Amino acid sequence: MTPGKTKFESALQVRPDDLDMFRHVHSSRYMDYVLAARFDQMARCYGVPMEKFLELGFGWVVRTAHLEFKRPLGLGEKMTVRTWVDEITSDSVKVHFEIFKEPARKLACDGWCLYTMVSLKTGRAEPIPDWIAAKYAV
Amino acid sequence: MTPGKTKFESALQVRPDDLDMFRHVHSSRYMDYVLAARFDQMARCYGVPMEKFLELGFGWVVRTAHLEFKRPLGLGEKMTVRTWVDEITSDSVKVHFEIFKEPARKLACDGWCLYTMVSLKTGRAEPIPDWIAAKYAV
Amino acid sequence: MTPGKTKFESALQVRPDDLDMFRHVHSSRYMDYVLAARFDQMARCYGVPMEKFLELGFGWVVRTAHLEFKRPLGLGEKMTVRTWVDEITSDSVKVHFEIFKEPARKLACDGWCLYTMVSLKTGRAEPIPDWIAAKYAV
Amino acid sequence: MTPGKTKFESALQVRPDDLDMFRHVHSSRYMDYVLAARFDQMARCYGVPMEKFLELGFGWVVRTAHLEFKRPLGLGEKMTVRTWVDEITSDSVKVHFEIFKEPARKLACDGWCLYTMVSLKTGRAEPIPDWIAAKYAV
Repeated sequence: MTPGKTKFESALQVRPDDLDMFRHVHSSRYMDYVLAARFDQMARCYGVPMEKFLELGFGWVVRTAHLEFKRPLGLGEKMTVRTWVDEITSDSVKVHFEIFKEPARKLACDGWCLYTMVSLKTGRAEPIPDWIAAKYAV
Repeated sequence: MTPGKTKFESALQVRPDDLDMFRHVHSSRYMDYVLAARFDQMARCYGVPMEKFLELGFGWVVRTAHLEFKRPLGLGEKMTVRTWVDEITSDSVKVHFEIFKEPARKLACDGWCLYTMVSLKTGRAEPIPDWIAAKYAV
Repeated sequence: MTPGKTKFESALQVRPDDLDMFRHVHSSRYMDYVLAARFDQMARCYGVPMEKFLELGFGWVVRTAHLEFKRPLGLGEKMTVRTWVDEITSDSVKVHFEIFKEPARKLACDGWCLYTMVSLKTGRAEPIPDWIAAKYAV
Repeated sequence: MTPGKTKFESALQVRPDDLDMFRHVHSSRYMDYVLAARFDQMARCYGVPMEKFLELGFGWVVRTAHLEFKRPLGLGEKMTVRTWVDEITSDSVKVHFEIFKEPARKLACDGWCLYTMVSLKTGRAEPIPDWIAAKYAV
Protein backbone atom coordinates (compact mmCIF):
# COMPACT_ATOMS: atom_id res chain seq x y z
CA MET A 1 0.00 0.00 0.00
CA THR A 2 1.42 3.40 -0.95
CA PRO A 3 1.01 6.17 1.60
CA GLY A 4 -0.75 9.28 0.36
CA LYS A 5 1.65 11.48 2.29
CA THR A 6 -1.06 14.03 3.01
CA LYS A 7 0.13 16.33 5.81
CA PHE A 8 -2.25 16.86 8.71
CA GLU A 9 -1.99 19.39 11.51
CA SER A 10 -3.00 19.59 15.18
CA ALA A 11 -2.85 22.66 17.40
CA LEU A 12 -1.35 22.16 20.86
CA GLN A 13 -0.17 24.37 23.69
CA VAL A 14 2.72 24.03 26.15
CA ARG A 15 1.56 23.16 29.69
CA PRO A 16 3.49 24.55 32.66
CA ASP A 17 4.39 21.00 33.74
CA ASP A 18 6.19 20.53 30.39
CA LEU A 19 8.83 23.12 31.29
CA ASP A 20 12.29 22.22 32.51
CA MET A 21 14.54 24.19 34.84
CA PHE A 22 15.65 26.38 31.93
CA ARG A 23 11.99 27.38 31.28
CA HIS A 24 12.04 25.42 28.03
CA VAL A 25 9.95 22.38 27.17
CA HIS A 26 11.64 19.13 28.29
CA SER A 27 13.05 17.46 25.19
CA SER A 28 11.11 14.28 25.96
CA ARG A 29 7.77 16.16 25.83
CA TYR A 30 8.14 16.69 22.07
CA MET A 31 7.61 12.94 21.68
CA ASP A 32 4.45 13.30 23.77
CA TYR A 33 3.27 16.16 21.54
CA VAL A 34 3.77 14.03 18.42
CA LEU A 35 1.82 11.19 20.04
CA ALA A 36 -1.00 13.57 20.99
CA ALA A 37 -1.13 14.87 17.40
CA ARG A 38 -1.19 11.33 16.01
CA PHE A 39 -4.09 10.33 18.29
CA ASP A 40 -6.00 13.45 17.21
CA GLN A 41 -5.26 12.85 13.53
CA MET A 42 -5.98 9.09 13.65
CA ALA A 43 -9.53 9.95 14.72
CA ARG A 44 -10.08 13.20 12.83
CA CYS A 45 -8.07 12.75 9.60
CA TYR A 46 -7.61 9.01 8.98
CA GLY A 47 -10.96 7.88 10.35
CA VAL A 48 -9.58 5.12 12.63
CA PRO A 49 -9.41 6.42 16.19
CA MET A 50 -7.09 4.72 18.71
CA GLU A 51 -10.21 3.43 20.48
CA LYS A 52 -11.04 1.43 17.34
CA PHE A 53 -7.60 -0.21 17.38
CA LEU A 54 -8.03 -1.08 21.07
CA GLU A 55 -11.47 -2.58 20.35
CA LEU A 56 -9.90 -4.75 17.64
CA GLY A 57 -7.21 -5.89 20.09
CA PHE A 58 -4.45 -3.84 18.45
CA GLY A 59 -2.00 -1.35 19.85
CA TRP A 60 0.89 0.67 18.43
CA VAL A 61 4.44 0.73 19.77
CA VAL A 62 7.29 3.03 18.84
CA ARG A 63 10.19 1.08 17.37
CA THR A 64 12.47 4.03 16.48
CA ALA A 65 12.28 7.74 17.24
CA HIS A 66 14.50 10.41 15.75
CA LEU A 67 14.21 14.03 16.84
CA GLU A 68 16.06 17.16 15.71
CA PHE A 69 15.61 20.10 18.06
CA LYS A 70 15.77 23.50 16.38
CA ARG A 71 14.20 26.13 18.65
CA PRO A 72 12.97 25.71 22.21
CA LEU A 73 9.30 26.12 23.05
CA GLY A 74 8.60 28.10 26.21
CA LEU A 75 5.96 29.10 28.74
CA GLY A 76 2.42 28.94 27.33
CA GLU A 77 3.53 28.86 23.71
CA LYS A 78 1.26 27.50 21.01
CA MET A 79 2.41 25.07 18.39
CA THR A 80 1.24 23.22 15.30
CA VAL A 81 2.19 19.57 15.03
CA ARG A 82 2.18 18.42 11.43
CA THR A 83 2.56 14.71 10.67
CA TRP A 84 2.35 12.51 7.60
CA VAL A 85 2.79 8.83 6.81
CA ASP A 86 5.92 8.52 4.73
CA GLU A 87 6.04 4.75 4.41
CA ILE A 88 3.79 1.76 5.13
CA THR A 89 5.17 -1.75 5.47
CA SER A 90 3.30 -4.94 6.36
CA ASP A 91 3.28 -4.17 10.10
CA SER A 92 4.63 -0.64 10.50
CA VAL A 93 4.23 2.98 9.49
CA LYS A 94 6.97 5.58 9.32
CA VAL A 95 5.58 8.92 10.39
CA HIS A 96 7.39 12.20 9.80
CA PHE A 97 6.63 15.21 11.93
CA GLU A 98 7.32 18.93 12.15
CA ILE A 99 6.50 21.03 15.20
CA PHE A 100 6.07 24.74 14.49
CA LYS A 101 6.17 27.50 17.08
CA GLU A 102 3.16 29.72 16.53
CA PRO A 103 2.19 32.33 15.53
CA ALA A 104 5.55 32.89 13.77
CA ARG A 105 5.44 29.33 12.36
CA LYS A 106 9.15 28.74 12.99
CA LEU A 107 10.35 25.15 13.15
CA ALA A 108 10.86 24.01 16.76
CA CYS A 109 11.54 20.31 16.18
CA ASP A 110 11.28 17.77 13.38
CA GLY A 111 11.99 14.09 12.89
CA TRP A 112 10.26 10.77 12.42
CA CYS A 113 8.96 7.76 14.32
CA LEU A 114 8.56 4.17 13.21
CA TYR A 115 5.41 2.70 14.76
CA THR A 116 4.63 -1.02 14.67
CA MET A 117 1.13 -2.39 15.10
CA VAL A 118 0.99 -5.11 17.75
CA SER A 119 -1.52 -7.55 19.11
CA LEU A 120 -2.48 -6.49 22.64
CA LYS A 121 -2.68 -10.18 23.60
CA THR A 122 0.74 -11.32 22.47
CA GLY A 123 2.59 -7.99 22.32
CA ARG A 124 3.92 -9.11 18.93
CA ALA A 125 3.82 -7.32 15.57
CA GLU A 126 0.65 -7.93 13.56
CA PRO A 127 0.11 -7.46 9.82
CA ILE A 128 -1.82 -4.22 9.28
CA PRO A 129 -5.22 -5.20 7.76
CA ASP A 130 -5.78 -3.90 4.22
CA TRP A 131 -8.74 -1.75 5.20
CA ILE A 132 -6.58 0.09 7.75
CA ALA A 133 -3.68 0.49 5.31
CA ALA A 134 -6.23 1.93 2.85
CA LYS A 135 -7.27 4.51 5.44
CA TYR A 136 -3.61 5.49 5.85
CA ALA A 137 -3.19 5.86 2.09
CA VAL A 138 -4.88 9.26 1.99
CA MET B 1 -8.48 42.92 49.77
CA THR B 2 -11.69 40.98 49.11
CA PRO B 3 -11.63 38.52 46.23
CA GLY B 4 -14.29 39.06 43.59
CA LYS B 5 -14.80 35.31 43.30
CA THR B 6 -15.50 35.57 39.59
CA LYS B 7 -15.24 32.10 38.06
CA PHE B 8 -13.08 31.75 34.96
CA GLU B 9 -12.82 28.78 32.61
CA SER B 10 -10.14 27.21 30.42
CA ALA B 11 -10.62 24.42 27.89
CA LEU B 12 -8.07 21.61 27.99
CA GLN B 13 -7.73 18.16 26.48
CA VAL B 14 -6.25 14.92 27.85
CA ARG B 15 -2.92 14.01 26.24
CA PRO B 16 -2.08 10.32 25.70
CA ASP B 17 0.93 10.69 28.02
CA ASP B 18 -1.50 11.66 30.84
CA LEU B 19 -3.05 8.19 30.89
CA ASP B 20 -2.21 5.55 33.44
CA MET B 21 -2.25 1.80 33.03
CA PHE B 22 -6.03 1.76 33.62
CA ARG B 23 -6.50 4.17 30.65
CA HIS B 24 -7.52 6.93 33.04
CA VAL B 25 -5.73 10.19 33.65
CA HIS B 26 -3.04 9.87 36.37
CA SER B 27 -4.41 11.49 39.51
CA SER B 28 -1.36 13.77 39.70
CA ARG B 29 -2.12 15.25 36.24
CA TYR B 30 -5.24 16.97 37.58
CA MET B 31 -2.90 19.24 39.56
CA ASP B 32 -1.08 19.98 36.31
CA TYR B 33 -4.38 20.79 34.60
CA VAL B 34 -5.29 23.25 37.36
CA LEU B 35 -1.87 24.89 37.04
CA ALA B 36 -2.28 25.15 33.26
CA ALA B 37 -5.70 26.76 33.72
CA ARG B 38 -4.31 29.22 36.28
CA PHE B 39 -1.48 30.27 33.95
CA ASP B 40 -4.00 30.79 31.14
CA GLN B 41 -6.38 32.74 33.38
CA MET B 42 -3.63 34.83 35.04
CA ALA B 43 -2.81 36.20 31.59
CA ARG B 44 -6.24 36.24 29.97
CA CYS B 45 -8.62 36.99 32.88
CA TYR B 46 -6.63 38.71 35.65
CA GLY B 47 -4.28 40.68 33.40
CA VAL B 48 -1.05 39.65 35.17
CA PRO B 49 0.61 36.83 33.21
CA MET B 50 3.12 34.58 34.94
CA GLU B 51 5.85 36.19 32.82
CA LYS B 52 5.08 39.50 34.57
CA PHE B 53 5.59 37.90 37.99
CA LEU B 54 8.90 36.40 36.83
CA GLU B 55 10.02 39.81 35.51
CA LEU B 56 9.23 41.32 38.93
CA GLY B 57 11.28 38.59 40.64
CA PHE B 58 8.22 36.78 42.01
CA GLY B 59 7.11 33.17 41.78
CA TRP B 60 4.20 31.17 43.18
CA VAL B 61 4.49 27.98 45.19
CA VAL B 62 1.75 25.57 46.22
CA ARG B 63 1.47 25.36 50.00
CA THR B 64 -1.55 23.03 50.23
CA ALA B 65 -3.47 21.04 47.63
CA HIS B 66 -6.72 19.22 48.19
CA LEU B 67 -8.32 17.15 45.43
CA GLU B 68 -11.55 15.17 45.34
CA PHE B 69 -11.77 12.76 42.42
CA LYS B 70 -15.30 12.13 41.16
CA ARG B 71 -15.13 10.66 37.65
CA PRO B 72 -12.08 9.57 35.68
CA LEU B 73 -11.09 11.38 32.50
CA GLY B 74 -9.99 9.09 29.66
CA LEU B 75 -8.39 8.93 26.23
CA GLY B 76 -8.66 12.21 24.31
CA GLU B 77 -11.40 13.63 26.50
CA LYS B 78 -12.02 17.36 26.66
CA MET B 79 -12.47 19.22 29.89
CA THR B 80 -13.26 22.65 31.27
CA VAL B 81 -11.15 23.81 34.21
CA ARG B 82 -12.99 26.46 36.22
CA THR B 83 -11.10 28.32 38.96
CA TRP B 84 -11.79 31.24 41.25
CA VAL B 85 -9.98 33.07 44.03
CA ASP B 86 -11.83 32.33 47.23
CA GLU B 87 -9.56 34.12 49.66
CA ILE B 88 -6.63 36.55 49.55
CA THR B 89 -4.27 37.00 52.47
CA SER B 90 -1.16 39.17 52.69
CA ASP B 91 1.03 36.65 50.85
CA SER B 92 -1.30 33.92 49.58
CA VAL B 93 -4.39 33.16 47.52
CA LYS B 94 -6.74 30.24 48.02
CA VAL B 95 -7.98 29.05 44.65
CA HIS B 96 -10.92 26.69 44.23
CA PHE B 97 -11.28 24.61 41.12
CA GLU B 98 -13.73 22.34 39.33
CA ILE B 99 -12.80 20.17 36.38
CA PHE B 100 -15.72 19.20 34.15
CA LYS B 101 -15.73 16.36 31.65
CA GLU B 102 -17.05 17.72 28.37
CA PRO B 103 -19.37 17.80 26.49
CA ALA B 104 -21.62 16.32 29.24
CA ARG B 105 -20.22 18.82 31.78
CA LYS B 106 -20.04 16.22 34.56
CA LEU B 107 -17.74 16.93 37.48
CA ALA B 108 -14.47 14.96 37.19
CA CYS B 109 -12.54 16.52 40.07
CA ASP B 110 -12.78 19.48 42.40
CA GLY B 111 -10.78 20.94 45.26
CA TRP B 112 -8.60 23.87 46.16
CA CYS B 113 -4.97 24.99 46.30
CA LEU B 114 -3.29 27.51 48.54
CA TYR B 115 -0.61 29.38 46.59
CA THR B 116 1.96 31.63 48.25
CA MET B 117 3.82 34.35 46.38
CA VAL B 118 7.57 34.11 46.92
CA SER B 119 10.65 36.09 46.06
CA LEU B 120 12.64 34.18 43.43
CA LYS B 121 15.84 35.41 45.10
CA THR B 122 15.17 34.27 48.65
CA GLY B 123 12.50 31.63 48.08
CA ARG B 124 10.57 33.21 50.94
CA ALA B 125 6.99 34.47 51.07
CA GLU B 126 6.52 38.05 49.88
CA PRO B 127 3.61 40.41 50.60
CA ILE B 128 1.40 40.57 47.51
CA PRO B 129 1.59 44.19 46.21
CA ASP B 130 -1.74 46.06 46.35
CA TRP B 131 -1.94 46.52 42.60
CA ILE B 132 -1.72 42.73 42.12
CA ALA B 133 -4.28 42.04 44.85
CA ALA B 134 -6.55 44.55 43.11
CA LYS B 135 -6.24 42.57 39.87
CA TYR B 136 -7.25 39.43 41.75
CA ALA B 137 -10.28 41.21 43.26
CA VAL B 138 -12.32 40.86 40.06
CA MET C 1 -10.34 -4.77 60.23
CA THR C 2 -8.06 -2.50 62.27
CA PRO C 3 -4.99 -1.19 60.50
CA GLY C 4 -1.68 -1.97 62.20
CA LYS C 5 -0.39 1.50 61.36
CA THR C 6 3.14 0.21 60.88
CA LYS C 7 5.15 2.84 59.04
CA PHE C 8 7.14 1.68 56.01
CA GLU C 9 9.76 3.58 54.06
CA SER C 10 10.98 3.71 50.46
CA ALA C 11 14.03 5.56 49.17
CA LEU C 12 13.56 7.62 46.02
CA GLN C 13 15.50 10.23 44.11
CA VAL C 14 14.42 13.32 42.18
CA ARG C 15 14.73 12.90 38.40
CA PRO C 16 15.68 15.93 36.27
CA ASP C 17 12.32 15.70 34.45
CA ASP C 18 10.57 16.25 37.83
CA LEU C 19 11.92 19.80 38.10
CA ASP C 20 9.89 22.88 37.29
CA MET C 21 11.09 26.22 35.99
CA PHE C 22 12.09 27.26 39.52
CA ARG C 23 14.39 24.19 39.78
CA HIS C 24 12.07 22.65 42.36
CA VAL C 25 10.09 19.45 42.03
CA HIS C 26 6.66 20.05 40.39
CA SER C 27 4.05 19.87 43.13
CA SER C 28 2.17 17.16 41.23
CA ARG C 29 5.23 14.87 41.28
CA TYR C 30 4.90 14.41 45.06
CA MET C 31 1.71 12.44 44.35
CA ASP C 32 3.71 10.30 41.93
CA TYR C 33 6.38 9.72 44.60
CA VAL C 34 3.73 8.56 47.08
CA LEU C 35 2.30 6.20 44.47
CA ALA C 36 5.76 4.81 43.71
CA ALA C 37 6.36 4.22 47.42
CA ARG C 38 2.99 2.50 47.80
CA PHE C 39 3.70 0.16 44.88
CA ASP C 40 7.10 -0.68 46.40
CA GLN C 41 5.62 -1.21 49.85
CA MET C 42 2.60 -3.19 48.63
CA ALA C 43 5.03 -5.77 47.24
CA ARG C 44 7.83 -5.58 49.79
CA CYS C 45 6.04 -4.79 53.09
CA TYR C 46 2.40 -5.91 52.77
CA GLY C 47 3.03 -8.96 50.59
CA VAL C 48 0.40 -8.13 47.95
CA PRO C 49 2.09 -6.57 44.91
CA MET C 50 0.04 -4.49 42.49
CA GLU C 51 0.50 -7.26 39.91
CA LYS C 52 -1.47 -9.57 42.24
CA PHE C 53 -4.37 -7.09 42.37
CA LEU C 54 -4.34 -6.83 38.56
CA GLU C 55 -4.38 -10.63 38.26
CA LEU C 56 -7.42 -10.76 40.53
CA GLY C 57 -9.16 -8.13 38.37
CA PHE C 58 -8.76 -5.35 40.95
CA GLY C 59 -7.30 -1.87 40.69
CA TRP C 60 -6.99 1.08 43.06
CA VAL C 61 -8.19 4.60 42.42
CA VAL C 62 -7.48 7.75 44.39
CA ARG C 63 -10.68 9.25 45.76
CA THR C 64 -9.15 12.12 47.79
CA ALA C 65 -5.63 13.51 48.01
CA HIS C 66 -4.44 16.10 50.50
CA LEU C 67 -0.90 17.44 50.36
CA GLU C 68 0.91 19.96 52.57
CA PHE C 69 4.12 21.26 51.03
CA LYS C 70 6.80 22.21 53.56
CA ARG C 71 10.17 22.40 51.83
CA PRO C 72 10.95 22.07 48.12
CA LEU C 73 13.00 19.16 46.80
CA GLY C 74 15.59 20.10 44.20
CA LEU C 75 18.02 18.78 41.61
CA GLY C 76 19.13 15.18 42.31
CA GLU C 77 17.95 15.20 45.92
CA LYS C 78 17.25 11.97 47.74
CA MET C 79 14.14 11.40 49.76
CA THR C 80 12.47 8.87 52.02
CA VAL C 81 8.76 8.30 51.47
CA ARG C 82 7.12 6.92 54.60
CA THR C 83 3.53 5.69 54.41
CA TRP C 84 1.12 3.89 56.70
CA VAL C 85 -2.47 2.71 56.58
CA ASP C 86 -4.42 4.85 58.99
CA GLU C 87 -7.88 3.51 58.34
CA ILE C 88 -9.48 0.58 56.50
CA THR C 89 -13.13 0.61 55.47
CA SER C 90 -15.04 -2.00 53.47
CA ASP C 91 -13.73 -0.76 50.12
CA SER C 92 -11.07 1.84 50.90
CA VAL C 93 -7.84 2.56 52.74
CA LYS C 94 -6.70 5.92 54.04
CA VAL C 95 -2.94 6.17 53.68
CA HIS C 96 -0.88 8.84 55.41
CA PHE C 97 2.50 9.84 54.04
CA GLU C 98 5.56 11.87 54.93
CA ILE C 99 8.29 12.72 52.43
CA PHE C 100 11.65 13.52 54.01
CA LYS C 101 14.50 15.33 52.30
CA GLU C 102 17.65 13.29 52.89
CA PRO C 103 20.22 13.12 54.36
CA ALA C 104 19.02 15.86 56.76
CA ARG C 105 15.63 14.10 57.15
CA LYS C 106 13.67 17.34 57.02
CA LEU C 107 9.99 17.14 56.12
CA ALA C 108 9.39 18.14 52.50
CA CYS C 109 5.71 17.21 52.20
CA ASP C 110 3.07 15.30 54.13
CA GLY C 111 -0.59 14.45 53.75
CA TRP C 112 -2.90 11.57 53.01
CA CYS C 113 -4.72 9.79 50.21
CA LEU C 114 -7.94 7.83 50.25
CA TYR C 115 -7.69 4.88 47.86
CA THR C 116 -10.69 2.80 46.83
CA MET C 117 -10.37 -0.72 45.47
CA VAL C 118 -12.28 -1.14 42.22
CA SER C 119 -13.18 -3.94 39.84
CA LEU C 120 -11.22 -3.48 36.60
CA LYS C 121 -14.26 -4.76 34.69
CA THR C 122 -16.90 -2.41 36.06
CA GLY C 123 -14.73 0.42 37.40
CA ARG C 124 -16.88 0.32 40.54
CA ALA C 125 -15.81 0.00 44.19
CA GLU C 126 -15.35 -3.58 45.37
CA PRO C 127 -15.36 -4.89 48.97
CA ILE C 128 -11.75 -5.54 49.99
CA PRO C 129 -11.47 -9.32 50.58
CA ASP C 130 -10.67 -10.28 54.19
CA TRP C 131 -7.34 -11.87 53.32
CA ILE C 132 -6.18 -8.60 51.76
CA ALA C 133 -7.46 -6.50 54.69
CA ALA C 134 -5.53 -8.88 56.96
CA LYS C 135 -2.35 -8.18 55.00
CA TYR C 136 -2.95 -4.44 55.48
CA ALA C 137 -3.45 -4.92 59.22
CA VAL C 138 0.31 -5.20 59.90
CA MET D 1 39.94 16.52 22.81
CA THR D 2 39.46 12.75 22.37
CA PRO D 3 36.76 11.14 24.46
CA GLY D 4 37.89 8.27 26.66
CA LYS D 5 34.72 6.35 25.86
CA THR D 6 34.63 4.84 29.34
CA LYS D 7 31.16 3.40 29.92
CA PHE D 8 29.41 4.39 33.16
CA GLU D 9 26.26 2.92 34.64
CA SER D 10 23.36 4.16 36.77
CA ALA D 11 20.64 2.03 38.35
CA LEU D 12 17.07 3.30 37.96
CA GLN D 13 13.60 1.95 38.53
CA VAL D 14 10.34 2.42 36.65
CA ARG D 15 7.85 4.64 38.51
CA PRO D 16 4.12 3.90 38.20
CA ASP D 17 3.58 7.31 36.59
CA ASP D 18 5.95 6.25 33.77
CA LEU D 19 3.52 3.60 32.53
CA ASP D 20 1.23 4.05 29.56
CA MET D 21 -2.17 2.51 28.95
CA PHE D 22 -0.52 -0.71 27.74
CA ARG D 23 1.32 -1.03 31.11
CA HIS D 24 4.63 -0.28 29.39
CA VAL D 25 6.90 2.67 29.98
CA HIS D 26 5.94 5.67 27.78
CA SER D 27 8.50 5.89 24.99
CA SER D 28 9.29 9.48 25.93
CA ARG D 29 10.32 8.43 29.45
CA TYR D 30 13.41 6.63 28.10
CA MET D 31 14.80 10.06 27.23
CA ASP D 32 14.13 11.12 30.82
CA TYR D 33 15.95 8.02 32.10
CA VAL D 34 18.99 8.85 29.96
CA LEU D 35 18.96 12.42 31.28
CA ALA D 36 18.72 11.15 34.87
CA ALA D 37 21.68 8.82 34.27
CA ARG D 38 23.72 11.63 32.73
CA PHE D 39 23.07 13.93 35.70
CA ASP D 40 24.10 11.14 38.07
CA GLN D 41 27.22 10.33 36.05
CA MET D 42 28.21 13.97 35.49
CA ALA D 43 28.51 14.31 39.27
CA ARG D 44 29.70 10.84 40.23
CA CYS D 45 31.86 9.75 37.26
CA TYR D 46 33.05 12.88 35.43
CA GLY D 47 33.43 15.11 38.47
CA VAL D 48 31.45 18.07 37.08
CA PRO D 49 27.92 18.02 38.48
CA MET D 50 25.14 19.88 36.67
CA GLU D 51 25.07 22.34 39.58
CA LYS D 52 28.65 23.32 38.66
CA PHE D 53 27.60 24.09 35.08
CA LEU D 54 24.69 26.19 36.34
CA GLU D 55 27.04 28.11 38.67
CA LEU D 56 29.29 28.85 35.71
CA GLY D 57 26.30 30.12 33.72
CA PHE D 58 26.20 27.09 31.42
CA GLY D 59 23.40 24.69 30.52
CA TRP D 60 23.08 21.74 28.13
CA VAL D 61 20.46 21.36 25.44
CA VAL D 62 19.62 18.30 23.37
CA ARG D 63 20.20 18.97 19.69
CA THR D 64 19.42 15.47 18.34
CA ALA D 65 18.01 12.35 19.95
CA HIS D 66 17.85 8.91 18.37
CA LEU D 67 16.20 6.02 20.18
CA GLU D 68 15.77 2.37 19.20
CA PHE D 69 13.20 0.54 21.31
CA LYS D 70 13.90 -3.17 21.73
CA ARG D 71 11.93 -4.50 24.70
CA PRO D 72 9.34 -2.68 26.82
CA LEU D 73 9.99 -1.98 30.48
CA GLY D 74 7.02 -2.61 32.76
CA LEU D 75 5.61 -2.12 36.23
CA GLY D 76 8.31 -1.64 38.88
CA GLU D 77 11.11 -3.00 36.71
CA LYS D 78 14.72 -2.14 37.43
CA MET D 79 17.12 -1.01 34.77
CA THR D 80 20.74 -0.07 34.22
CA VAL D 81 21.40 2.99 32.10
CA ARG D 82 24.88 2.87 30.57
CA THR D 83 26.21 5.94 28.79
CA TRP D 84 29.49 7.01 27.26
CA VAL D 85 30.85 10.03 25.43
CA ASP D 86 31.51 8.94 21.86
CA GLU D 87 32.58 12.25 20.42
CA ILE D 88 33.51 15.72 21.65
CA THR D 89 33.40 18.77 19.39
CA SER D 90 34.07 22.41 20.30
CA ASP D 91 30.59 22.94 21.77
CA SER D 92 28.91 19.53 21.85
CA VAL D 93 29.18 15.95 23.07
CA LYS D 94 27.64 12.91 21.44
CA VAL D 95 26.53 10.49 24.12
CA HIS D 96 25.60 6.89 23.39
CA PHE D 97 23.34 4.98 25.74
CA GLU D 98 22.06 1.50 26.41
CA ILE D 99 19.21 0.76 28.80
CA PHE D 100 19.18 -2.78 30.16
CA LYS D 101 16.23 -4.49 31.79
CA GLU D 102 17.44 -6.05 35.04
CA PRO D 103 18.16 -8.56 36.45
CA ALA D 104 18.26 -10.40 33.08
CA ARG D 105 20.33 -7.57 31.53
CA LYS D 106 18.41 -7.64 28.26
CA LEU D 107 18.58 -4.55 26.06
CA ALA D 108 15.41 -2.45 26.39
CA CYS D 109 16.48 0.61 24.39
CA ASP D 110 19.63 2.09 22.91
CA GLY D 111 20.59 5.16 20.91
CA TRP D 112 22.42 8.43 21.20
CA CYS D 113 21.93 12.11 21.99
CA LEU D 114 23.85 15.12 20.81
CA TYR D 115 24.08 17.69 23.62
CA THR D 116 25.28 21.24 23.06
CA MET D 117 26.62 23.41 25.86
CA VAL D 118 24.92 26.81 25.93
CA SER D 119 25.25 30.06 27.82
CA LEU D 120 22.27 30.46 30.14
CA LYS D 121 22.32 34.20 29.42
CA THR D 122 22.19 34.11 25.64
CA GLY D 123 20.85 30.60 25.03
CA ARG D 124 23.57 30.23 22.40
CA ALA D 125 26.20 27.51 22.01
CA GLU D 126 29.39 28.11 23.99
CA PRO D 127 32.84 26.57 23.44
CA ILE D 128 33.36 23.84 26.03
CA PRO D 129 36.29 25.00 28.25
CA ASP D 130 39.38 22.76 28.05
CA TRP D 131 39.23 21.77 31.70
CA ILE D 132 35.69 20.43 31.19
CA ALA D 133 36.60 18.63 27.96
CA ALA D 134 39.49 17.07 29.91
CA LYS D 135 37.04 15.77 32.51
CA TYR D 136 34.98 14.20 29.70
CA ALA D 137 38.08 12.55 28.24
CA VAL D 138 38.08 9.74 30.84
